[in-house]
Amino acid sequence: MHALSSEDYKPLEDKLGYTFKDKNLLEQALTHKSYATEKGVKSYETLEFLGDALINLFVVDILISEFTQAKEGELAPMKAFFVSEDFLSSLAQDLQLERYLLVSGKKGKFKINTSILGDVFEALWGAIYMDTGKDLNFTKHLFENLYKDKVVSMARSQDYKRDYKTILQEITQKKWKERPVYRIVSVSGPQHSRTFEVECSVKNFRAVAVGSSKKEAEQLSAKRLLEMLQEL
Amino acid sequence: MHALSSEDYKPLEDKLGYTFKDKNLLEQALTHKSYATEKGVKSYETLEFLGDALINLFVVDILISEFTQAKEGELAPMKAFFVSEDFLSSLAQDLQLERYLLVSGKKGKFKINTSILGDVFEALWGAIYMDTGKDLNFTKHLFENLYKDKVVSMARSQDYKRDYKTILQEITQKKWKERPVYRIVSVSGPQHSRTFEVECSVKNFRAVAVGSSKKEAEQLSAKRLLEMLQEL
Repeated sequence: MHALSSEDYKPLEDKLGYTFKDKNLLEQALTHKSYATEKGVKSYETLEFLGDALINLFVVDILISEFTQAKEGELAPMKAFFVSEDFLSSLAQDLQLERYLLVSGKKGKFKINTSILGDVFEALWGAIYMDTGKDLNFTKHLFENLYKDKVVSMARSQDYKRDYKTILQEITQKKWKERPVYRIVSVSGPQHSRTFEVECSVKNFRAVAVGSSKKEAEQLSAKRLLEMLQEL
Repeated sequence: MHALSSEDYKPLEDKLGYTFKDKNLLEQALTHKSYATEKGVKSYETLEFLGDALINLFVVDILISEFTQAKEGELAPMKAFFVSEDFLSSLAQDLQLERYLLVSGKKGKFKINTSILGDVFEALWGAIYMDTGKDLNFTKHLFENLYKDKVVSMARSQDYKRDYKTILQEITQKKWKERPVYRIVSVSGPQHSRTFEVECSVKNFRAVAVGSSKKEAEQLSAKRLLEMLQEL
């Protein structure tokens, strides 16, 4: 019994440039524990644990290879950014992982936030590694094909040091002499784990993003708007 | 100009089951920044940064493969132990890495502690990986050949949850109805980075170890004495 058919995963597999031999592994990587508990199946938890270690290594390897003269003191903050929930959840959003995520049926109760998206992204890489029969070299090359250029160019431009709101504002001020406006669309979830949905808009452009804080949601909406502007 | 000749590294390479193609990489892995600064050469810093990520992944992979039913909540503390300074410095001591370490000529000022030994062990794995032309699969297999059994058996016996002083005392009480005695042999280094040398003894057995705290030095001396008793 599968929640989705093999065909449903095709767009995701195309984006990854990788076709899973074992779709169960892919499905597990996309199974949140709320769904796993309900259905009595495995969640993505251990794949996430594995994926976290894989991505950590792949990022370190990319940084070491590219910044051969950098000291550990410069490499460590770069690494911290590229393995952060923020960055990994943005990669998850690029893959539209939220479309495939299996969460509890009690939808009203459940809000997909950046933390979950970052976790699912890690789990996905754990699943790819397992699916290759634990071929580390292959998995690393796949990761590099997809993300090396992005990581290196962000690291070189030192984008990782700055915040998206600042960058966006710099651009919109220059382009239109206008500043983006942020608006909270919704706040949901229990007191101790709120989810904020924020809309960022400027001129005719609008982007919406969710986060576990207002600040985080603002940053992500700014990031999305930036991406829209960069595609112009 | 090398501090050691290629031949000097042979015993270490034999223990590893790996012969370096590029001895400069091996030498860099063994070069403390105190020596690097003095001689104007590269220290092990970035190799350590890389090795840390490698070992983290190798340990996670071993634990996931062996404890297939364990949840992330059980795996995380195991991992924490096996990537700890304590554990990695004990592996460094097994390889007698302190013999090869290149440190500042001002010997009196310098004391090799567990933190440095753990770092050098990480750097060694960073160097092996680089020396293989970044063959992750090969490097992982080499690591597993050397340490998988040890990690798995320690994890299974839950040794990682307990402290060596407690275990040693349990054994000596049972064996001889005696408790080990701990004695501080020396304290050195500046106020903010003391090095403690502690001797642990019971019956005719004695073991000495250093640590960055009294507690740490005691634990390591207990661990060494345990190893001596286990070899009886």
